[in-house]
Amino acid sequence: MAFASFNGLQSLKFSSRECMFNPVNGSNKRRYSVKACVKKPDHDTHLDSKINLVLESVKWDEKGLAVAIAQNVDSGAILMQGFANRDALATTITSKKATFYSRSRSTLWTKGETSLNFINVHDIFLDCDRDSIIYLGKPDGPTCHTGSETCYYTSIFDSLNKAEVEENNLALTTLYSLESTLAKRKQELLNNEQGKPSWTKRLLLDDKLLCSKIREEADEFCRTLEEGEDESRTLSEMADVLYHEMVLLIRRGLKFEDVLEVLRHRFTQSGVEEKNSRKSKSVK
Amino acid sequence: MAFASFNGLQSLKFSSRECMFNPVNGSNKRRYSVKACVKKPDHDTHLDSKINLVLESVKWDEKGLAVAIAQNVDSGAILMQGFANRDALATTITSKKATFYSRSRSTLWTKGETSLNFINVHDIFLDCDRDSIIYLGKPDGPTCHTGSETCYYTSIFDSLNKAEVEENNLALTTLYSLESTLAKRKQELLNNEQGKPSWTKRLLLDDKLLCSKIREEADEFCRTLEEGEDESRTLSEMADVLYHEMVLLIRRGLKFEDVLEVLRHRFTQSGVEEKNSRKSKSVK
Repeated sequence: MAFASFNGLQSLKFSSRECMFNPVNGSNKRRYSVKACVKKPDHDTHLDSKINLVLESVKWDEKGLAVAIAQNVDSGAILMQGFANRDALATTITSKKATFYSRSRSTLWTKGETSLNFINVHDIFLDCDRDSIIYLGKPDGPTCHTGSETCYYTSIFDSLNKAEVEENNLALTTLYSLESTLAKRKQELLNNEQGKPSWTKRLLLDDKLLCSKIREEADEFCRTLEEGEDESRTLSEMADVLYHEMVLLIRRGLKFEDVLEVLRHRFTQSGVEEKNSRKSKSVK
Repeated sequence: MAFASFNGLQSLKFSSRECMFNPVNGSNKRRYSVKACVKKPDHDTHLDSKINLVLESVKWDEKGLAVAIAQNVDSGAILMQGFANRDALATTITSKKATFYSRSRSTLWTKGETSLNFINVHDIFLDCDRDSIIYLGKPDGPTCHTGSETCYYTSIFDSLNKAEVEENNLALTTLYSLESTLAKRKQELLNNEQGKPSWTKRLLLDDKLLCSKIREEADEFCRTLEEGEDESRTLSEMADVLYHEMVLLIRRGLKFEDVLEVLRHRFTQSGVEEKNSRKSKSVK
């Protein structure tokens, strides 16, 4: 995803306010029609024909389906996987809400139409064979119907290796696996658990030590450039500083994903908006 | 993925040396048999029955298939998507090389058997419905047969928005989209292109400025904790320091993914190995 693509399709922009007043059935079960949620764009035949071209370029299988994978644009987590038919992809393009085709119910469904945990799609990608789709977006809340952040929380290697299998062991990539470990250390401290002593726990208990380490590691990272040390030293020092910075985020109860959201918003605003909102430095 | 799971299944560990001497047909087209590549584990009926239980728990479709998505364990990039049948999943579990079932050729295939760009699987996850699989692993090289890092390089929103569509616009999440933007700025400088002036370019041209900014931003980040500033300030300052650190990585021609690989290796080594290899601080 290029940052530029976030700014696209303005004419098709989704109006969440409009959506909130369009329940399909006004009962306890809140269901919202995505069709009702989408601002009708001015009739744009040029755009219509472009969308048609895209839809025709997809290699739909014998049932008219392609695999559709929803991925968190900030964390990279795979949220869920479903199938899309032509209408589901067209609806996702225009509504920018991840929409699938339910094979069991033979109907379109938009993730979030019941739970309101929509997946707000920022870009859509096709693979080299044009039969697999990524909906790259930001979820409004947990994606899984179980309340889990993603649907992938069952590790096969855990099942094979461990006597006791963790109930909710999310498929986490390296950075978020580290974050999860740091959060566990914090929880152990909060619970007054007598675990093994750890450097992370020492840092979490001592703000002065934590901050002095971050400053020291940032300095060492810089010196790998200033003193022409080899590249492996730069990688190693960056790993050090990043680890300590993540401990500070955990210390404050913050998520790395939220840092990325801040970065993303900076890069999608125009330079002027950016300058006005921050009133200091520009990072573009 | 918990860090612990990397250490599992030792008895099934893949021997790449063994693999290199087992070409299936010794012609120009190098093809390697994954079966030949896998160390025969001591017969472990307990493990066999556990693997069988896992294979039986998957909800295979009417053709005996489930969707299998390969994801980069460090960057989170979705590398490719294929289908797995029972044998493909069993082979992936034992060989730890991402293996799929080819619907067109009606045969198993291991990603990398021709290109040698295997995807080394660190963990495997099932979704809540047990009909979708993530192979979480590290690729040996580009995954796509086109030479692209991943198979997802065609943006639908680009096709709809832009007159000229970028040929290879990978589906990048926020951090890697930023990294790609910074790399472009560096390339513009190398090409002597007259683009817009940018803060990134100034930093890339001035090591002293870059290092002073990293030290300054790290200090500001720490002060949000020391001075009890609100959480949004901590996020904002972390975004600042991370951006500047990434500029230094790009200045040195390094990838953020490689920093994550360093972190991952630290957390998968035992404490003793870790201490011996680094001979300084422990970060666990």
